[in-house]
Amino acid sequence: METGLKITGTFLDEISHDIPHQNWGEREWDEDFRLMKAIGIDTVVMIRCGHRKFVTYPSPYLQGRRGCFGPSADLVDLFLRLAERHGMAFWFGLYDPGEGGHPAYAEANKAVIDEVWARYGARKAFRGWYVSNEFGRREPGSVEAVREMALRCKDASGGLPVFISPWIDGGKAVSAFRAETSREGAVTVSEHEREWGGIFAELEGAIDACAFQDGHIRYDELDAFFAVNKRLCDRHGIACWTNAESFDRDMPIKFLPIKFDKLRLKLEAAARAGLDKAITFEFSHFMSPQSMYPSAGHLYNRYREYMGL
Amino acid sequence: METGLKITGTFLDEISHDIPHQNWGEREWDEDFRLMKAIGIDTVVMIRCGHRKFVTYPSPYLQGRRGCFGPSADLVDLFLRLAERHGMAFWFGLYDPGEGGHPAYAEANKAVIDEVWARYGARKAFRGWYVSNEFGRREPGSVEAVREMALRCKDASGGLPVFISPWIDGGKAVSAFRAETSREGAVTVSEHEREWGGIFAELEGAIDACAFQDGHIRYDELDAFFAVNKRLCDRHGIACWTNAESFDRDMPIKFLPIKFDKLRLKLEAAARAGLDKAITFEFSHFMSPQSMYPSAGHLYNRYREYMGL
Amino acid sequence: METGLKITGTFLDEISHDIPHQNWGEREWDEDFRLMKAIGIDTVVMIRCGHRKFVTYPSPYLQGRRGCFGPSADLVDLFLRLAERHGMAFWFGLYDPGEGGHPAYAEANKAVIDEVWARYGARKAFRGWYVSNEFGRREPGSVEAVREMALRCKDASGGLPVFISPWIDGGKAVSAFRAETSREGAVTVSEHEREWGGIFAELEGAIDACAFQDGHIRYDELDAFFAVNKRLCDRHGIACWTNAESFDRDMPIKFLPIKFDKLRLKLEAAARAGLDKAITFEFSHFMSPQSMYPSAGHLYNRYREYMGL
Repeated sequence: METGLKITGTFLDEISHDIPHQNWGEREWDEDFRLMKAIGIDTVVMIRCGHRKFVTYPSPYLQGRRGCFGPSADLVDLFLRLAERHGMAFWFGLYDPGEGGHPAYAEANKAVIDEVWARYGARKAFRGWYVSNEFGRREPGSVEAVREMALRCKDASGGLPVFISPWIDGGKAVSAFRAETSREGAVTVSEHEREWGGIFAELEGAIDACAFQDGHIRYDELDAFFAVNKRLCDRHGIACWTNAESFDRDMPIKFLPIKFDKLRLKLEAAARAGLDKAITFEFSHFMSPQSMYPSAGHLYNRYREYMGL
Repeated sequence: METGLKITGTFLDEISHDIPHQNWGEREWDEDFRLMKAIGIDTVVMIRCGHRKFVTYPSPYLQGRRGCFGPSADLVDLFLRLAERHGMAFWFGLYDPGEGGHPAYAEANKAVIDEVWARYGARKAFRGWYVSNEFGRREPGSVEAVREMALRCKDASGGLPVFISPWIDGGKAVSAFRAETSREGAVTVSEHEREWGGIFAELEGAIDACAFQDGHIRYDELDAFFAVNKRLCDRHGIACWTNAESFDRDMPIKFLPIKFDKLRLKLEAAARAGLDKAITFEFSHFMSPQSMYPSAGHLYNRYREYMGL
Repeated sequence: METGLKITGTFLDEISHDIPHQNWGEREWDEDFRLMKAIGIDTVVMIRCGHRKFVTYPSPYLQGRRGCFGPSADLVDLFLRLAERHGMAFWFGLYDPGEGGHPAYAEANKAVIDEVWARYGARKAFRGWYVSNEFGRREPGSVEAVREMALRCKDASGGLPVFISPWIDGGKAVSAFRAETSREGAVTVSEHEREWGGIFAELEGAIDACAFQDGHIRYDELDAFFAVNKRLCDRHGIACWTNAESFDRDMPIKFLPIKFDKLRLKLEAAARAGLDKAITFEFSHFMSPQSMYPSAGHLYNRYREYMGL
C-alpha cells in the first residue's frame, strides 16, 4: 500500500462557527497537544481569534471598539504556552467580523494585527499568521483583503510567514447550515486552474503557503485538482499545503469524524501530487482520543497503525 | 469577573420531542440527581407527562381514553422518589397532545390534573406545576388555556405554585426540524414588552413564575430583554425566572451542549437584571458528566470552577 | 407486560451512506460480535459490499472495471472470521452503484456475485444473501432487478437463502438528507397490501424472507401494517421478518439511538403479528456498549433487562 502524506499541522477551532464547543479546560488542552505531538504534529493554527462578538483573548480593541464579549480565558496565551511546552509552532488566525464582507474583514484586522503582535509577538512559539477569511472563487474584495492583511502581518512581525486555506468550489461546497451534502454547479478543474492562476498572481509575495480544503470535491477528483494546485503554487513561489479535513462531508450529521479510508485516500493523493505539507481541520474534535466523538479516537488509532506511529 | 446567577433548577426532558433519549435506568437517574444536587440544583421539573401517544406514568385516562402507549416505567414515581432522596422539589409538567392547539391542550389536561394529583399529590416532593404549552406570541387560545390550567392546578392541589416557560420570539426562534439557525422577523424589545404586558395582565394570579427561554435572542440583546421581563413580572406579581438553555442554538447539529462562555454570558445578564431564579433546559443531556455528549461533562466542570462549587 | 420478538440478527453497516463511520479495527469488531452474541444475535448481514466507489473487499471487478478505491482492510474476510469464531451466520449484501437505478444495480451485481462466491463461498459462515437495493413502492425495474439478482445468488451458491429489506412508504419515509422527519402522502394500509401483494407474487420462489423496515410508520400503525405483511408473506411462501430499526426517526439529529420504549413497542407488535424473525439496523451504532453514541449502550442494558438476558 502506498503511503499518504503525514499530517503535521492542525487547526485549533477557537472560535468555531459551526462545530460545537467541547468546553475543555487547560488540562484537556495540554493533553491534546501531547496527543498531537505523538503523531508528528508540529504546527497548530488558531483558526480565528474571534468571530462576531466572541473572542479568544482579552482585546481592548475588539471589546472596547466593537462590543465583543470578554472571554473567560486567554486562549492565545494558553495555546502559546502549550506550543512552547510541547515544542510546536503556533500560527495566529485573524478576526472574522462575520458580516460586511472582505473589506470589513480587512478594516477590523488592521487594529487586531498590531494589538496581537504587541501582546504576543515576543512569544517563542509565535511563528506565523493565518489569514482566515475563506473563499473558493474570486469574490468582491477577497483577493485584495487577503493581500493587504498578509502584507500587514509580515510587516508587523518582521516577515513571519502567512498562509490561507481556501476551498475548492466543488460539488460538496454546501453550507453546514443546509441539510443537503451536495449541489449542482461545481467548478471544473480548468475553471479552477484559470481562476486561481489569476488569484495567485496577485498574492505572490504576500502569502507563503496555501492549504486548499480537500473536502469539497469527489474522491475521484483529488488527483486532478491536487496536480493543478501544486503546479499553480510552484509557479508563484507559494508552498502547496493541503488541508486534509478529518470530518465527513458526506453524512447528514454536520459534522462527525471522517471514515479512515477517506482520509487515507486524500493523504495518498496529496503524496502523489508532491504537496508540501498536510494540516487538518481539525485534530481536537475529529482525531483526538479525547474528542466528544469517540469515533475520533478510533480514527487516531487507525491513522497511527497506517503511518506506523 | 462578575458572577452569574446560579442555576438551581432543571427540566427533566421526559417525554422529549426533539432531544434524543439517553435510555437511562434508575441507577443513572439516581446518579444524575446526585450530580445536580452537587452544583446546587434544588428543583427538578418534568417537562411534560406525555407527548402525543407516549406518557411517563401509567395513566388510565391517557391510555384508556386517548390510546396512549403504556410506559415501561413509572417515571413520575421514580422522579418523586429521587427528589425525596436527594432533598429536591419536583414540579409536574402537563400533558402535550401535540395537535389541536391550546384548546385541545386544556381539554386533555383537565382529566390529567385530577388523575395525577390523586395518584401522586400526597408525595412529599410534589411542590408545583408546570403548564407546558409553549408560546412566544399571543396565539389563539394560548393565554386562556394557560390561565385555565394554572387555576385548575392550584385548585386541585391546595394552591401549589405554577410556572410557565415561554420563548422570546427572537431571531433564533427556528424549529429544531429545520436546518437553519436564524430567521428574519424577530420580535423587537418594545413589541415584546407590549405583548407580554398584556399577557401577564391576564395571567396575574394564575401563575407564580415565568421562566423565559433565553436562547432565541442574540447575546447582545440579553440585557434589554431581561430588563423588560423583570419589569413586567414585578408589575404583575410574578417571579421572574430565566430558563438558561444549556444547549447551543448556533450550531448545525440540533442540539449539543453549549459553549461555556455563552452560558456564562446569559447567567451574568440574568444577575444584572436581578432575575429571581435560573433553571436550565436541561441538565441531563447538556450539563451532566453522564450525558451521552461528553462536552456536557466538561461544561459541568467549567461551570463548577466558575461558580466555585 | 407482554414480550416482544427477540432480535436475532443485525446489519453491519459497511459501507454506509448516511451513518458516520466508527473507525473500528479488528479488536472492536471482535468485541462487538461478542456483545451481539450475548443478547442472542445469531445472524449478521453486511448491508452492502460497496457503495459507489467505496468497497468492503479487494475486488478485481469493482476496482478494475468500475474504478472503485481499494479498501485498507478486507471486511468480508474479517466478518466471516468473526462470524465463525462466535458461531453466527453471515449474509452478504450486494453492491450498490449509487446511480443508474435498478437496471444498473443488476448489471453490476452479476459480476459481483460470481466474484464473491468464488472468493468466499467456501467459508463456513457464509449462509445467505441480501439483495440490497431498497424500495417501498413498485419503482421501474425494481422487482425485476430483485428477482434476477435473487435467482442469480441462489444459482451461484447452490441455493443459499436470499432476503430483502424494503421500506413501508409511510409518513416518516423522508430522506436522511432533509431536515424534516415526516411528510404528507403516506401510503395507506390497503394501498400497501395491494402493491406488495403484486410484488410478492413476482418474487415468489426468488426470495426466502422479507424484512420490512419498521421505522417509517407511526407507532399506532404497527399492528395494521405488520398483519398485512405477515398475511402477504405467508401467502407467497416468504418468511416474514421485521427490520426493527434501533435508531430514532423522530429526532432532528439523523440519527441517534432510539428510545427503548419505541423499540419495545415495535418488537411487541412484531410478536403479536407472529412475525418470523427480528433483525435490526443496526447493532454497532445504536445498541452496542461500544458505540460512539453512549445512549446505545444504555439501550443495550434496557433491552437486556426487558428480555431477561
